[in-house]
Amino acid sequence: MHLFKGIIPVNKLAYDFIQKIFNKNPGFLCVLGNTETGKIPGISAAGANPAITDYTPPADLELLYYGKCKSIPGVPITPDGIPTPAIITLAAKTIADIPVFGVNGGLRALPLGPYIELGGAPGESILNGASLSNVKNVFERAIVIGKNFSKAFDYLVIGESIAGGTTTALAVMMAMGINASGKVSSSMSFNPHDLKNEIIRTAFKNLKLKQGGLKHDPLKAIELVGDPIQPVCAGLAIGATSGIPVILAGGTQMAAVVSIISVLEEPALENIAIGTTRWLIEDRSSDLQGLIKEIREIPILAINLNFSVFEEPGLRAYEEGVVKEGVGAGGMSISAIVKSGGKITLDDIYEGILKIYKNFKGKL
Amino acid sequence: MHLFKGIIPVNKLAYDFIQKIFNKNPGFLCVLGNTETGKIPGISAAGANPAITDYTPPADLELLYYGKCKSIPGVPITPDGIPTPAIITLAAKTIADIPVFGVNGGLRALPLGPYIELGGAPGESILNGASLSNVKNVFERAIVIGKNFSKAFDYLVIGESIAGGTTTALAVMMAMGINASGKVSSSMSFNPHDLKNEIIRTAFKNLKLKQGGLKHDPLKAIELVGDPIQPVCAGLAIGATSGIPVILAGGTQMAAVVSIISVLEEPALENIAIGTTRWLIEDRSSDLQGLIKEIREIPILAINLNFSVFEEPGLRAYEEGVVKEGVGAGGMSISAIVKSGGKITLDDIYEGILKIYKNFKGKL
Repeated sequence: MHLFKGIIPVNKLAYDFIQKIFNKNPGFLCVLGNTETGKIPGISAAGANPAITDYTPPADLELLYYGKCKSIPGVPITPDGIPTPAIITLAAKTIADIPVFGVNGGLRALPLGPYIELGGAPGESILNGASLSNVKNVFERAIVIGKNFSKAFDYLVIGESIAGGTTTALAVMMAMGINASGKVSSSMSFNPHDLKNEIIRTAFKNLKLKQGGLKHDPLKAIELVGDPIQPVCAGLAIGATSGIPVILAGGTQMAAVVSIISVLEEPALENIAIGTTRWLIEDRSSDLQGLIKEIREIPILAINLNFSVFEEPGLRAYEEGVVKEGVGAGGMSISAIVKSGGKITLDDIYEGILKIYKNFKGKL
Repeated sequence: MHLFKGIIPVNKLAYDFIQKIFNKNPGFLCVLGNTETGKIPGISAAGANPAITDYTPPADLELLYYGKCKSIPGVPITPDGIPTPAIITLAAKTIADIPVFGVNGGLRALPLGPYIELGGAPGESILNGASLSNVKNVFERAIVIGKNFSKAFDYLVIGESIAGGTTTALAVMMAMGINASGKVSSSMSFNPHDLKNEIIRTAFKNLKLKQGGLKHDPLKAIELVGDPIQPVCAGLAIGATSGIPVILAGGTQMAAVVSIISVLEEPALENIAIGTTRWLIEDRSSDLQGLIKEIREIPILAINLNFSVFEEPGLRAYEEGVVKEGVGAGGMSISAIVKSGGKITLDDIYEGILKIYKNFKGKL
């Protein structure tokens, strides 16, 4: 059995999944979206301020393509100046030579680079009525793309960049009757559960939606209270698992994607794992494992990144619970190590991150 | 040495190229575009009438994805009701299980399905000033996508769907000083060389452009008198050949792409072949081989399709020189046979085409 230093098999199913992808050739799909929900003050740290979060997803993708952002100067940062997890993804991608394809789930600001278009639109605020339109079409187009990529790679890593995604993940899971309150993660070190619950309470009341009221209709749940990355991640994964394994690379947002898939195409989950970070797994303010157990147990893997190896405060801050995950950082780090059969180590990834960080430090 | 019944090695270099792709796993990129040039009456048969040619490229792509068009009823046809060569591509794609990705070079009507977006715009009429904008950005984004796909497939097949593409191909080659007059092909059985020459004469005069005046600046030539598929096909091929071979699947339009590449990234041509049809090679009104010899000799392969095997007049018409090529029909048929190591034969492709044709016959 292949095990890798640096990769934590979070549950028993993880062991088998690692064997499936050992030494195999992955592709990375980075799904991008915006919602007005993500701009509610106090909801997200995926940008220096709420207005600029429109540019965080395209800037993350540009960073992965070109090693530098085009839509903004420097790289996306939290309000405290902590850099985007895309620097981790970029390090993993570069070292392991994993190709990246951006996918537009629904963006306000388009990437200044190539991307896959599925006809989606950005989300409104769930406080002001239905969040999304055209969900079914986007979902079906994502299935086509997922199926096509299943003939291109040995497995797919599917990540996301969207501000406020854990709030819309919570909302969709609650609409589907999953006991998710207090269990979703946050890009901030203090997880604003009360604010999230309050927003969702108001949204559900306005929409006359009951908890569990859309147990069997996830696309409707997405339309009402979801976000643009959800139908795309679900569709890509369902399409791809017709032929190959899939890593949903993210935290509790991916639990919402798993819950959507569990209703629309349950057998696909046989071939899906969650790949995330140690920060996410050890986070006491959220419960990814509990969520996944409640929905349907699938493999969970975590990359054992520990940024106390760094001297730079902007990187060490990750150890205080800021950011934690995003842009497929965990799943891509795992894939870099497994693709190389263990030749690539955590130290290689750290070295890559430091180089990228130093390159941008003056500009943050 | 592997040779295949049904595939014609048109020149000596073709033999080696076939060995390179023997039994390998290809992906198909279908590049779509529109120009107002393509709507000049008498220029193109890629649509029942000039106005509807806006819908031919998206409809071709939808046919490949879904086995039916969504943007139009039935399938794209010539003014005489002869069906699009995409039915050949669909047969080859289906039999050999080759995944298709649409790429928007610059469309007036977007596909009702997924596609790769590069930020291009449709072309104006070359009679009214510069044809295109944003050419350099689109070209560079295509390189990124080509590079990424080089890590996904063993080789790439790059095809096109655009009405009037041989006229803009001729214009670009003439701007680059290639002696192409009277040598480009046509989707009609009567090749309107005089009309094409007259259009180009007028366009060059309006733009104060001389034959050969842009010998060293193909992107400028595309901007002034080209079309949206040209920078995309060139960029995709240049990006992909950093790692894998490429088949430019098309007729004399691809000679223009070869001439563009020969200036921008000449070494890429070491890894590029043209894959086309017997109809194109045997066409007495055009001269693909002559063009390629003048630009730079690269392998040319042709599929030995002969539609006199059919009883259906709509298919037999291909033997009278209508359509001839398009939507990667030749290159995809070649790839289907080579991918299977010869297990897939011309008869299998005929059978697939007939099934598709019969399915649509009532709707044409």
